Amino acid sequence: MIKIINTTNGTEEVQKEIEALLNRSQLEFGEVNRSVEDIITKVRDEKDKAIIEFTEKFDGVKLDSIEVTEQEIEDAYNSCDPELIAALEEAAENVREYHQKQLSNSWIQNDKKGIMLGQIYNPVEKVGIYVPGGTAPYPSTVLMNAVPAKVAGVSEIIMVTPPSKDGSVNKNILAAAKIAGVDRIFKAGGAQGIAALAFGTESVPKVYKIVGPGNIYVAIAKRIVYGYVDIDMIAGPSEILVLADETANPEYVAADMLSQAEHDTLASSILVTTSEELAYKVKEELAVQTASLSRKDIIEKSLADFGAIIIAKDMDEAISYTNEIAPEHLELIVKSPFEMISSIKNAGAIFLGAYSPEPLGDYFAGPNHTLPTSSTAKFYSPLGVDDFVKKSSLIFYDRERLEEKKDQIIKIAEAEGLTAHANSIKVRFK
Amino acid sequence: MIKIINTTNGTEEVQKEIEALLNRSQLEFGEVNRSVEDIITKVRDEKDKAIIEFTEKFDGVKLDSIEVTEQEIEDAYNSCDPELIAALEEAAENVREYHQKQLSNSWIQNDKKGIMLGQIYNPVEKVGIYVPGGTAPYPSTVLMNAVPAKVAGVSEIIMVTPPSKDGSVNKNILAAAKIAGVDRIFKAGGAQGIAALAFGTESVPKVYKIVGPGNIYVAIAKRIVYGYVDIDMIAGPSEILVLADETANPEYVAADMLSQAEHDTLASSILVTTSEELAYKVKEELAVQTASLSRKDIIEKSLADFGAIIIAKDMDEAISYTNEIAPEHLELIVKSPFEMISSIKNAGAIFLGAYSPEPLGDYFAGPNHTLPTSSTAKFYSPLGVDDFVKKSSLIFYDRERLEEKKDQIIKIAEAEGLTAHANSIKVRFK
Repeated sequence: MIKIINTTNGTEEVQKEIEALLNRSQLEFGEVNRSVEDIITKVRDEKDKAIIEFTEKFDGVKLDSIEVTEQEIEDAYNSCDPELIAALEEAAENVREYHQKQLSNSWIQNDKKGIMLGQIYNPVEKVGIYVPGGTAPYPSTVLMNAVPAKVAGVSEIIMVTPPSKDGSVNKNILAAAKIAGVDRIFKAGGAQGIAALAFGTESVPKVYKIVGPGNIYVAIAKRIVYGYVDIDMIAGPSEILVLADETANPEYVAADMLSQAEHDTLASSILVTTSEELAYKVKEELAVQTASLSRKDIIEKSLADFGAIIIAKDMDEAISYTNEIAPEHLELIVKSPFEMISSIKNAGAIFLGAYSPEPLGDYFAGPNHTLPTSSTAKFYSPLGVDDFVKKSSLIFYDRERLEEKKDQIIKIAEAEGLTAHANSIKVRFK
Repeated sequence: MIKIINTTNGTEEVQKEIEALLNRSQLEFGEVNRSVEDIITKVRDEKDKAIIEFTEKFDGVKLDSIEVTEQEIEDAYNSCDPELIAALEEAAENVREYHQKQLSNSWIQNDKKGIMLGQIYNPVEKVGIYVPGGTAPYPSTVLMNAVPAKVAGVSEIIMVTPPSKDGSVNKNILAAAKIAGVDRIFKAGGAQGIAALAFGTESVPKVYKIVGPGNIYVAIAKRIVYGYVDIDMIAGPSEILVLADETANPEYVAADMLSQAEHDTLASSILVTTSEELAYKVKEELAVQTASLSRKDIIEKSLADFGAIIIAKDMDEAISYTNEIAPEHLELIVKSPFEMISSIKNAGAIFLGAYSPEPLGDYFAGPNHTLPTSSTAKFYSPLGVDDFVKKSSLIFYDRERLEEKKDQIIKIAEAEGLTAHANSIKVRFK
């Protein structure tokens, strides 16, 4: 059962509760770390052969070839529910449109005679996307990772995903990959999939950046290859924080909290409210709605372990808890949600008002559903076009301008003891 | 002595040379890794006490207090060479002006009735900057890391740097910190400095992001705390690639190559040219100029181990090697440098023409000197304002728009087996 914390009894308990939340998902190293290192080393050295061995061991299928064929993709797409295909296509279009607004232009600063400075934008050339398999494969994950890369202009998008026991890849995943414009797909899951992308094999091209969610093996593998390639982030379990006042409908609030709680027993669903009445009504609603949901057991554990209803003494206090928690998903179900935007400093995505529930963002509206978890919204951003674009600085001085400033440059170079740096300026004006 | 590779004898040798360069700076783990882990754990658990112990052990000074006082900063600033102060102030102003052009606005997309989507930008609230100490402390490093953070609107900039044996911090470093607007400075170097920033101590505030260069201990420590906090990048040894045609002055080319070679015996200086004549003249010039430089020994080893002059058969081939190497610093000393910009896909900073030598960018022009090394320009960007800003997505649908799209959202949620997600939509339209 979810706990209610009333801050009118002092804020100490709230602080403890928040700390417990923030400590939820520290990665454990040691054993797992070493076995992931072993997998990565073997794939780096033995390439496709190692992929095939690990796939037999972990996924229970011996593959002849690890690449998914054009025919497999066509067959999957054609055998999907046409209504699902239509919904995914509309969602992909929304994701495309939203991410196109994120594109920035290269620029040049030319306001000083004889000087031009700027920044040139280029897409990362090759990107890898990890898509989990297992019992509930998520086509939305494919869209949210591949479409922004496509919009950024990435020329090669490589997807890896674990095959089922019969050697196939889930048809919805393959259909989503076709819709999103993924270039090539390989059957390689877990740490072996990440290693294949990071180092390349005979079949799998080496990429420069790896994105996408995964289990603990995938997370640790991404951490290990980070630096050789770039990665998106280390994602933790999902979270929602609903910030609500007395105008909120408790039924909606409860339903939205449950939509996160069902993800994972480690997921966290929090209500912060200024209304004691709402707090108790939401608690009741949570129990009522949970009873009829298919993932009831996960939900009950998640709410008991990482759920909380916090009653704040006023909206300022409520906002301050919110910024401290820095939730992945923040719903503002209050009278004037837009007015609160400027008070929110740390959140992955902000859902405004009673008709913008979190699943709207997960699947459809357009903004990315890959969001910073576990308080990392204090320093990370949602996945976006910027993740697939890199910049080069541009510097031009003409002879006159360099001559004008040569003494200052030489001064700093010499203060740092770097005489060859100073010489590179001097040699031009001997 | 630097080697000359002529691709008219076949491209195999060039490929091998490039591979050797790309493999230059793989981090070695094992022993060092474990000792860095121990330092980090001790600082996390014992805080200031551990900092003071490690500082005594590694820097040879027992500190009473680890924070640098206002008085120490004032005294340092006032005792610096006034010409150096003036040069640093002008450089800081250039860095500020350039980085201000990188600021982006929060935006809202309002082209569909009843729907508003957008992105809100907020600065990272607290940032830590690591500044190396040792024999040649670099005030330019302070400017290049702190000024962009300041421009982004970071409210607390915390600097850590190792003290000298007498317990002081280099005066040029302190003066640069004052010029750049650093808020607080602590005497803590190496892995213990990084750990203090990542976890906080009684004296040092915990930050959300750590930037700045350092030795192998600092690099490994940053890698270990990555995920708890964000970091800028794992920097390797410095590189320059000069792309030159027959119009280039060999004296300038040689001087610029030497300015990188002096950094480190692992630094890499490469000339790629279409002119055989230039190649041989630059080789001569390198020998002549090296003889009179103070860091001669470092330069000779660096040129012999990681330097190369590559003669390409034409400019297309030369550009293709350049993009494959993805150098940190790229100088285009050619007839029409601006025309080549669109061919360059991977480079940290691009210096255009004969009067834009690399030290101009290191110290003065304004673009950041923290740049991606070791081919990571294939996926990383120069340090900039974006590194200190994070985004929150914004999602608003009104009742009508959500009702219109509810079936599509429910369809995808149910395909993913997430019935509580579907329920969060359904509950609003019962």
